[in-house]
Amino acid sequence: MSLDTTDRHYEREFVRTFFTSPTAVEGEDDSAKMLRSAAQLRGMQAPDVWVPDNEDATAPSMRAEGIGNIIDVVAEHGADFPGEIHPRVVWHREDPALRYQGFQQMLRIATDDSDAIEHLDGFVIPEVGDIDDWKKADEFLTIVEHEAGLETGSLSMSVIVESGEAELALGDLRAEMGKPANNLERLFLLVDGEVDYTKDMRAMTRTGGLPPWPELRHNTSRGASAAGLIAVDGPYDDIRDEAGYLARMRENREKGMTGIWSLTPGQVVAANTAPLPPEDGSWLLEVDGEEIDLTEADGNHVYDGDAVAIEKAGEDDYVLSTGSDTRELDADELREEVVNMAAYVPGMDDIVDSMEEFEAAKEAGRGAIAMTQSATLVIDGVEIEISRDRMWDEATYQAAQTPITLFQDVYEHRPDQHEALEEMYGEDVVERATAVGS
Amino acid sequence: MSLDTTDRHYEREFVRTFFTSPTAVEGEDDSAKMLRSAAQLRGMQAPDVWVPDNEDATAPSMRAEGIGNIIDVVAEHGADFPGEIHPRVVWHREDPALRYQGFQQMLRIATDDSDAIEHLDGFVIPEVGDIDDWKKADEFLTIVEHEAGLETGSLSMSVIVESGEAELALGDLRAEMGKPANNLERLFLLVDGEVDYTKDMRAMTRTGGLPPWPELRHNTSRGASAAGLIAVDGPYDDIRDEAGYLARMRENREKGMTGIWSLTPGQVVAANTAPLPPEDGSWLLEVDGEEIDLTEADGNHVYDGDAVAIEKAGEDDYVLSTGSDTRELDADELREEVVNMAAYVPGMDDIVDSMEEFEAAKEAGRGAIAMTQSATLVIDGVEIEISRDRMWDEATYQAAQTPITLFQDVYEHRPDQHEALEEMYGEDVVERATAVGS
Amino acid sequence: MSLDTTDRHYEREFVRTFFTSPTAVEGEDDSAKMLRSAAQLRGMQAPDVWVPDNEDATAPSMRAEGIGNIIDVVAEHGADFPGEIHPRVVWHREDPALRYQGFQQMLRIATDDSDAIEHLDGFVIPEVGDIDDWKKADEFLTIVEHEAGLETGSLSMSVIVESGEAELALGDLRAEMGKPANNLERLFLLVDGEVDYTKDMRAMTRTGGLPPWPELRHNTSRGASAAGLIAVDGPYDDIRDEAGYLARMRENREKGMTGIWSLTPGQVVAANTAPLPPEDGSWLLEVDGEEIDLTEADGNHVYDGDAVAIEKAGEDDYVLSTGSDTRELDADELREEVVNMAAYVPGMDDIVDSMEEFEAAKEAGRGAIAMTQSATLVIDGVEIEISRDRMWDEATYQAAQTPITLFQDVYEHRPDQHEALEEMYGEDVVERATAVGS
Repeated sequence: MSLDTTDRHYEREFVRTFFTSPTAVEGEDDSAKMLRSAAQLRGMQAPDVWVPDNEDATAPSMRAEGIGNIIDVVAEHGADFPGEIHPRVVWHREDPALRYQGFQQMLRIATDDSDAIEHLDGFVIPEVGDIDDWKKADEFLTIVEHEAGLETGSLSMSVIVESGEAELALGDLRAEMGKPANNLERLFLLVDGEVDYTKDMRAMTRTGGLPPWPELRHNTSRGASAAGLIAVDGPYDDIRDEAGYLARMRENREKGMTGIWSLTPGQVVAANTAPLPPEDGSWLLEVDGEEIDLTEADGNHVYDGDAVAIEKAGEDDYVLSTGSDTRELDADELREEVVNMAAYVPGMDDIVDSMEEFEAAKEAGRGAIAMTQSATLVIDGVEIEISRDRMWDEATYQAAQTPITLFQDVYEHRPDQHEALEEMYGEDVVERATAVGS
Repeated sequence: MSLDTTDRHYEREFVRTFFTSPTAVEGEDDSAKMLRSAAQLRGMQAPDVWVPDNEDATAPSMRAEGIGNIIDVVAEHGADFPGEIHPRVVWHREDPALRYQGFQQMLRIATDDSDAIEHLDGFVIPEVGDIDDWKKADEFLTIVEHEAGLETGSLSMSVIVESGEAELALGDLRAEMGKPANNLERLFLLVDGEVDYTKDMRAMTRTGGLPPWPELRHNTSRGASAAGLIAVDGPYDDIRDEAGYLARMRENREKGMTGIWSLTPGQVVAANTAPLPPEDGSWLLEVDGEEIDLTEADGNHVYDGDAVAIEKAGEDDYVLSTGSDTRELDADELREEVVNMAAYVPGMDDIVDSMEEFEAAKEAGRGAIAMTQSATLVIDGVEIEISRDRMWDEATYQAAQTPITLFQDVYEHRPDQHEALEEMYGEDVVERATAVGS
Repeated sequence: MSLDTTDRHYEREFVRTFFTSPTAVEGEDDSAKMLRSAAQLRGMQAPDVWVPDNEDATAPSMRAEGIGNIIDVVAEHGADFPGEIHPRVVWHREDPALRYQGFQQMLRIATDDSDAIEHLDGFVIPEVGDIDDWKKADEFLTIVEHEAGLETGSLSMSVIVESGEAELALGDLRAEMGKPANNLERLFLLVDGEVDYTKDMRAMTRTGGLPPWPELRHNTSRGASAAGLIAVDGPYDDIRDEAGYLARMRENREKGMTGIWSLTPGQVVAANTAPLPPEDGSWLLEVDGEEIDLTEADGNHVYDGDAVAIEKAGEDDYVLSTGSDTRELDADELREEVVNMAAYVPGMDDIVDSMEEFEAAKEAGRGAIAMTQSATLVIDGVEIEISRDRMWDEATYQAAQTPITLFQDVYEHRPDQHEALEEMYGEDVVERATAVGS
């Protein structure tokens, strides 16, 4: 059974990338240099949400100048920027002076004579606490809108969840957003901030690295789902470790958290691309909870590593070893074991094919069809023909739709990425992918 | 310190199996064929809770006929069915038309001239949202009871948790169930529905498989514990992967979630059996977080796989290798390491013995006793005699009681399984197990 | 952005150790023997919080005598005990008789003619339920304070979280603590009790061991963070398994839970020491989610185990194998892979150095500096020179401060441990560590 999900009060359904830039850097000829270059990013290098960051990324002494820079750069480049623009201002649940500064920063940007505010989509409020603290920021936004002659609710509000209080508030959102005395319907992104969260929780790791905080990410994703918002993970500091960044995003997508913070244009490209279906399908083996990717070679799918070993021990005798287990099997038993370990990672093409096939079946009055995937796997030189059926019913179809809906959302809101998408998938697949399921 | 847990408003304390059947299948001579055959399951093949499924398992065009089939089949076979019967009707937190249909389906079944309703224990409501949405279903049940001349609260209500909202509602149950304007005391099962939950959370996996959702299962189990209800995990789609199904149930039991959805009579047998203590005790090694089962041979417990290796390097010199670690040890150090890795999995017989022994000690005025387990392990051909003590106090005793209470609950409510249980454990052990701890 | 965290209503900021002693043991000449010996522990053997345990550790028939023993022993030794003293009394959310007994036990201790109460810091209440149940205990403490002529709120209250209800209550604390009709500001420790929690959740493991309950520990730690309290993990039963105890504490610290129950003076030493930074820095490799410690030898950092293998295959050709992966690499690629796997575990000295360096940079007007770590790793005999940069900004600095703040808190409140700390780190490092960051 399935219907539209909780209403969203904004146009875009997905945010893949949340890219912060310092608003003013000391010692440069032009303190707005980084802001200016970020504003001119296009295509896969441009984020879905760009955040001129007048908080942690900018030295306190430069923040007044930073507001001026935001106004200048957004007035000049905002109209052409392909993503949304949401400056981050200062805020802290335990410091009224900082909250008042945050209000003044927003007010100054919104009421400036330039038309910068016309190109801004909202503001990002860091270090929020309980839901009552969120309401204080919301009230300031309401006043700012009024002073700037904007309609109430036209500026969205995103928050950084970086305290236990804020994590708890994620459970209150749905009930609080409908209340008449606030305008919390303006909420947009729920962004985890693991560095300060770690400090607030007083957690320690041996190496000083961040703990993984799986429960925080679950609760943020669930809060977003229940309130019709979008969940975004915090910064991944080790900017040279692309494999680690990709692994983190994969974990996040399994939690329903599609977006992630990006610290460099390189991370933006990675994070804009990662949630999209791969160009081509591939096979993997699931061994002791790890996913092991097979390499395609001459139409076969090959694995020669140490995590799985197969030895031919006789005419119809094999020894299969995995991390925790060694077994003697005949060819049929071996195939069955390998079928159980193997899983297919569909490419964009496959997903569109399967959805089209299921749509046709449904039109013909059939509620479920079997989709078959066959392949030759070559493990330690031993060839194994496998074939896996999967039943597709309405629920499978709808689950498969998430990456397609994401793709379509990207395609609709990011014309500057059309070229890259067509290069990646081919024009034909892009065309079919934009049409399927609607 | 320990007392009875939160009161339960139903007789059965545990539900191992939640088995769904389509209510009407198109293109068969008898559209109720699957319903009819499910209704006649007995013994280990019969579930604790049988769910004639007029929602996802049945095509929308067949659901009107499905209600008729439920009435017919339950009127004919319901009196003899050994488990409880809880049809699932349609419902959606975001669709009033569907909610009204769900009400009409329940009303039609309950007020039919046949005596079907006398054999029904309650209804299953899918796709619930906030607690206020649960109350709408509860109110419909109250009206249905009134129209059918039933006592208020006599029909139980089970829900499928398949949205972020519903997951959050799990935290409100205990406070809401006591309120005078509802009859939520009728709640019975909290069932996870991971397919639609995944869609609602907009989560994506590479292979299209379901994410593991450990937090959802924890929250469902905790919600059940706090409100005196029973937690049930969702369907395990890969019906040929019995090892995977068993591993999932083991994980669930460690979370306090004893029940699981079953899609086939084969899965029902597996899920009825899995939570019961094993017939015989056995040994395992815990290595890098994995449990490695030893095989019994001639009274020894043997392991020859790759996860642990022991080499004799000299007179009193051994090299012990595990995944992450290699060490040289003398015989005493080796034994100590193996003792730390080894754990005993008690069989039914052992559990009953230990409980009886502790009861006798308590009667004799002793609050704690040491239980010893000894064995000869043979790893890579090296024999190691080990012996482990465990202190039993009141808390240990009570924790050990959970599987026994489960067994006793099954024995009391499922006479049709007595024969299978006696075959599995022997009559003597069954008799002692039904008597211990009461 | 960062400020002081949520106010704490007690002096001590951290509790490393929660050590319980039976209050009266039958069959001894002096039933208070264990209490008496615990009261005389000093230095690393003395816990931060000592709990004369008149609940589970003491037989019900001995509990009246236990109260007398608490009064005697605390009156005699309490003034000199170096940690805080918090007796545990009986309580149960579902048993009014036990709750009344708990009240009487507290009242008897507090109003005794001896001056025992002057040396007590508060009481520990086990088996609490909903927040309304916590309020009942709080009210009794208010009455006890009044009867004993103490200021309201002068006795702190710690609870054992060992039910689903209590876990849910952790989310309500922050909102409830401010209400005028209670004195919940007296709350101090939130202690998990996994044995009874497991029973309450009706969870089962194969071996009868405790499930890991990661979500419970997260929720307790978050509840403590949001309400300005201190989170403490439950008992680790296998008192001979020191490696397991250390691993558990490491996991806990990654969750922000710094304290743990200790059952023996040996566990107290381990748990007092574990959260402090190590004396010397060291290197580890992160492979497939496991941390593999390298051994220092002649200034190099060496690994010869099986989890990572490097073979020299040619002039500039290496084969790197990890659990799931085998790759051919040249020397530069190999170095890059090893850099990505390697992480430095800073010693106390390193942390103080880095903080001082960052403080100096900040004073000189720089907001971020790069800290470099270099080392020679020797894996399977292959030498690899690596060097890692880490950017330090205000947020990094503040995160690094947690272990230093912990150290300073210990240094301030535990003069009896100064000698041990100076022996461990050297006087110079201790002196600098007490001064940095303030």
